[in-house]
Amino acid sequence: MIIVLKAGASDEDIQKVVDKLKEFNYGAHISRGENRVVIGAIGEKRMEEKILIMEQISSLPFVEQVIPILSSYKLVTREFNPSGTKIRVSPDVEIGNDQIVIMAGPCAVESKEQLFEIAEFIKDVGAKVLRGGAFKPRTSPYSFQGLGIEGLKLLYKAKQKYGLPVITEVMDPRDLEIVAEYADIIQIGARNMQNFTLLKEVGKLRKPVLLKRGISATLEEFLFAAEYIMVGGNSEVILCERGIRTFSDYSRNTLDLTIVPALKYKTHLPIFVDPSHGTGNFRYVPSMAKAAIAAGADGLIIEVHPHPEKALSDGPQSLTFSDFRRLMNELKSIANAIGRRL
Amino acid sequence: MIIVLKAGASDEDIQKVVDKLKEFNYGAHISRGENRVVIGAIGEKRMEEKILIMEQISSLPFVEQVIPILSSYKLVTREFNPSGTKIRVSPDVEIGNDQIVIMAGPCAVESKEQLFEIAEFIKDVGAKVLRGGAFKPRTSPYSFQGLGIEGLKLLYKAKQKYGLPVITEVMDPRDLEIVAEYADIIQIGARNMQNFTLLKEVGKLRKPVLLKRGISATLEEFLFAAEYIMVGGNSEVILCERGIRTFSDYSRNTLDLTIVPALKYKTHLPIFVDPSHGTGNFRYVPSMAKAAIAAGADGLIIEVHPHPEKALSDGPQSLTFSDFRRLMNELKSIANAIGRRL
Amino acid sequence: MIIVLKAGASDEDIQKVVDKLKEFNYGAHISRGENRVVIGAIGEKRMEEKILIMEQISSLPFVEQVIPILSSYKLVTREFNPSGTKIRVSPDVEIGNDQIVIMAGPCAVESKEQLFEIAEFIKDVGAKVLRGGAFKPRTSPYSFQGLGIEGLKLLYKAKQKYGLPVITEVMDPRDLEIVAEYADIIQIGARNMQNFTLLKEVGKLRKPVLLKRGISATLEEFLFAAEYIMVGGNSEVILCERGIRTFSDYSRNTLDLTIVPALKYKTHLPIFVDPSHGTGNFRYVPSMAKAAIAAGADGLIIEVHPHPEKALSDGPQSLTFSDFRRLMNELKSIANAIGRRL
Amino acid sequence: MIIVLKAGASDEDIQKVVDKLKEFNYGAHISRGENRVVIGAIGEKRMEEKILIMEQISSLPFVEQVIPILSSYKLVTREFNPSGTKIRVSPDVEIGNDQIVIMAGPCAVESKEQLFEIAEFIKDVGAKVLRGGAFKPRTSPYSFQGLGIEGLKLLYKAKQKYGLPVITEVMDPRDLEIVAEYADIIQIGARNMQNFTLLKEVGKLRKPVLLKRGISATLEEFLFAAEYIMVGGNSEVILCERGIRTFSDYSRNTLDLTIVPALKYKTHLPIFVDPSHGTGNFRYVPSMAKAAIAAGADGLIIEVHPHPEKALSDGPQSLTFSDFRRLMNELKSIANAIGRRL
Repeated sequence: MIIVLKAGASDEDIQKVVDKLKEFNYGAHISRGENRVVIGAIGEKRMEEKILIMEQISSLPFVEQVIPILSSYKLVTREFNPSGTKIRVSPDVEIGNDQIVIMAGPCAVESKEQLFEIAEFIKDVGAKVLRGGAFKPRTSPYSFQGLGIEGLKLLYKAKQKYGLPVITEVMDPRDLEIVAEYADIIQIGARNMQNFTLLKEVGKLRKPVLLKRGISATLEEFLFAAEYIMVGGNSEVILCERGIRTFSDYSRNTLDLTIVPALKYKTHLPIFVDPSHGTGNFRYVPSMAKAAIAAGADGLIIEVHPHPEKALSDGPQSLTFSDFRRLMNELKSIANAIGRRL
Repeated sequence: MIIVLKAGASDEDIQKVVDKLKEFNYGAHISRGENRVVIGAIGEKRMEEKILIMEQISSLPFVEQVIPILSSYKLVTREFNPSGTKIRVSPDVEIGNDQIVIMAGPCAVESKEQLFEIAEFIKDVGAKVLRGGAFKPRTSPYSFQGLGIEGLKLLYKAKQKYGLPVITEVMDPRDLEIVAEYADIIQIGARNMQNFTLLKEVGKLRKPVLLKRGISATLEEFLFAAEYIMVGGNSEVILCERGIRTFSDYSRNTLDLTIVPALKYKTHLPIFVDPSHGTGNFRYVPSMAKAAIAAGADGLIIEVHPHPEKALSDGPQSLTFSDFRRLMNELKSIANAIGRRL
Repeated sequence: MIIVLKAGASDEDIQKVVDKLKEFNYGAHISRGENRVVIGAIGEKRMEEKILIMEQISSLPFVEQVIPILSSYKLVTREFNPSGTKIRVSPDVEIGNDQIVIMAGPCAVESKEQLFEIAEFIKDVGAKVLRGGAFKPRTSPYSFQGLGIEGLKLLYKAKQKYGLPVITEVMDPRDLEIVAEYADIIQIGARNMQNFTLLKEVGKLRKPVLLKRGISATLEEFLFAAEYIMVGGNSEVILCERGIRTFSDYSRNTLDLTIVPALKYKTHLPIFVDPSHGTGNFRYVPSMAKAAIAAGADGLIIEVHPHPEKALSDGPQSLTFSDFRRLMNELKSIANAIGRRL
Repeated sequence: MIIVLKAGASDEDIQKVVDKLKEFNYGAHISRGENRVVIGAIGEKRMEEKILIMEQISSLPFVEQVIPILSSYKLVTREFNPSGTKIRVSPDVEIGNDQIVIMAGPCAVESKEQLFEIAEFIKDVGAKVLRGGAFKPRTSPYSFQGLGIEGLKLLYKAKQKYGLPVITEVMDPRDLEIVAEYADIIQIGARNMQNFTLLKEVGKLRKPVLLKRGISATLEEFLFAAEYIMVGGNSEVILCERGIRTFSDYSRNTLDLTIVPALKYKTHLPIFVDPSHGTGNFRYVPSMAKAAIAAGADGLIIEVHPHPEKALSDGPQSLTFSDFRRLMNELKSIANAIGRRL
């Protein structure tokens, strides 16, 4: 950590910083430039202490800037697992290797008929995991809130019938036990990326978690959220970009695909992309699905519905069966072009 | 609701929209312009149906735009309570009248000594409510997470000793019962503004709730979050602006004060401002506190600490005692200038 | 255009709107709902009048919302040229057909040696247009401002020697004549996307213009900027996404690739992507270049430098020769996978 | 400047950095931590060299971060003129002292009658400077573009008749001479904050310049834009916050008032606020005008129109005469409350 003092800082000020560092068993290396005094803090402390001391030193009125040298997370860093994490979801499906995994299904589980029709179809065209919401986070209290436990049971039945592992979202820590019982992958939605209560709870599981990036999360906050889960002992975390909130209003969110190579560089965890929420518009989903694969994503999660105009949730961003079939073919070509497979 | 079809929409397309509307018992008024067909949907439906039909019609590929005419929330609208909501917190403190209410205290409850010293001081200079975090949402799992229930008990003791009502944050629905037992006002933090599980639970209480705006929440989403609470039967909601996330990086957040007059115009609920989180820098807190009052806020919530450089959380944005005392005097002048009182 | 009045609007208010519309020769269709009066304005006016009347009606205090039905630009819309604009830059290079065109070169022209070395190399690996800045817009007055006219002349010499058409930026309307003399494509940079003086001037040329999206431009503003050029009579406009400014800070800008399919849907103009400025980091350029092609872009503009650590501008986002060569090969595969060619 | 190398950087890498520094006559101080090598660059160089070396070192692939210690602007810093810049506009009007200066007038000069009616009124209620656009930057080519030179002449006549200094915008460097002849203060609009051509030209004048913050400008970029003007020799720069672009859509822009105390802290230049463009809605202008003064602004620039519903530009954000009169009274109270005067 490097501490820059304000112009005109006195010897007494410098001493206060040195004392503060000593309190935490840090050494201090003082460098006096023509305009500023810069103090390097020397010593390797536990993360808990590093974060606290940085904040406390920042509170000193004669300190201009405190600059960390090392990141404040560790379990998620690429150094921690240079070869990359692979997550086995079922005997057939492993995430993080050269196979690109497509998860697909309706936004919300609406009925047995709807779910089974979709499950059969997506399996047929090559998707490997069935998605479907049972508990739905909705902006308005007047929107459809999901079938709840009934939805979970339908997902489980679809899984048994079609042999597809299932992913579904949990919103309430009190539901976690039952969701974990029925689902193969637990989804933490964008709105809950910093629901630390929930993160700590899924950290106690030994089950894959797909963690969606919050709509205004920085890359660093995203990694800290994953760190919360890993600190609890659960290392099977899949990161998922699903669009961020910006000024741009022609799409529901702004899909930030550059985070794919950036996360590949910084972390060992696999990266997924959700082009459905990322664009909010079925018209742009296929292009962005292809772009995500070209950018290096390990997989996609896509909303599919046989009749978007009858969907109880997110119809405008759902692909029809024919659109999804066409897309799967195109994705195969792109995967081959970059030396991977679907 | 008004539905605009794409250029070249056929009679069959028009009929599909009309049929869809009929399905929900809406009448249709068709207007054919030179370039576009516009359909007005006539009928007053329950909110649940209006939201669903809008989404489903948006999913039709030949529909260009669906424009709502009325807002999709109702309990929070100014029409619902034109004279404005007043919330009695204690015999002495009512929020929403011409008195401006200042809540102050440490970011986190750290110890009995710290809390009592602060409580005594802020009461002395005119603050009316004591704030202090017992459960702390922290970006990093390695940061101080709060004293938990021990912190709640200290708040309660401070309340008894100094006669100040207390406000504290709840993060986990499983903690709500105990938090409600000790606190006079329940705080929902910015990260939980769309934690719908939590919103539904506090909606069941009969206790004031201070709801902070999420860092990327639109005004509409903010009002929907309040609507979630009010739908549950709890109408004592205080809205609180605390800064939004933008590209601008010289302050921790961008304090969006224009939302004060905008909310005054749109809702009957009282509006607070948190200049501490809103700026993230003690240097800018006094200016923005004054600006918030001048803009029409009903109160402020401010972080105060006797020794910011020893704080376990948020030192860089905490005011010292002398800074806070000076600010309280300045706020009195501003309040008088706009015909209110502190 | 549809006009929604506030709740409680009087008959007199309605009449004022009708009169205002009549003043502009619009008919009015009044529809009284239970809660709101909605007025449809009927008539096809010139764009100038439509924009003015919308703004004036919005200024009436009893008007809640004025909703346009049609977009306010026309020459750029896809309807205006459904088959898509093709722009011939040289006998060998046409933009907007199934061939993807790569423009490459240094951020700034630094010397004859530097420019010729790069030109020779990029031609060798398949790039079709040479880029290079002569006039450089720099955030700081202390940064290298470009070689100016000397740089233009070097570009022209490189063009003659290597047979590559050249693209360079113009910032000052007084330089336009000379830039147009030397360059094959005129670039309008992101900072000048709403420099209307410059847009009007390039509108008078009959020469291709590459118009970069401003860092905070909406899709609509981007199209209006292109409309400014087309209104002047110059229809050879290439749109170029180069990243927008958001809260996200791990990359210099946030590359908004979804705008590629969105623009394809809305306009007939060709779309380019600049992954160098879009990411600001050489490490992420190849992934995003591939993603842009997979998303449907018609071409790319990429910064290449033999020695980024000696570049006078934008070294951190420049590709080395070996990186660029590898990327060109990968781009060929992606192009083939989507049925196009490089 | 401090240079952090990547984990695993070799001795050879370190040497390359040291050599690079030596090339620019910097000394190097190497500090080897357990995980990272950190190199401090020692020496005071000209700004031009500092910026270039930082960028070149950032381009080295084994460099993780380059951290500047000092800001890269100098003329605008508070250290440069600790007592604050005062700008005399006319014998009666000085900006930057304890008097708050209100500039008011129409968005666009429309006619002699309109302008004179407004000038007479605003003078009567205490505004000190007349604003009015002659050259208008408009998003759409179909919007009213201003009266041009005719508008300048009307402003000059209004100045002579009512004794009010005038401010107007310049967009084209070729118009600067004539604008400077007629106007007392030259306005650089938000869209031109980084029109470096224009900044350099107004830097050559000896006339006050009001520089509006670009809608996506960071504080640093804003100061660099002012530095461009000051480097040219013109030190009479007034900074003006007028709203930034964020995700928030209930107001036209997000007025970032925190920049007022932040700029007061960092620069000696006076700070104005434009609540008209900052909110885009006449309903919110008075609250934000009062908030701006409470936050410490040196003045305001406000749009006033006798008949907003007939305005040729920006009607929805213009105050009527009665609204403006009321506001001026309220501003006087606020100014008194903070020890200043109107």
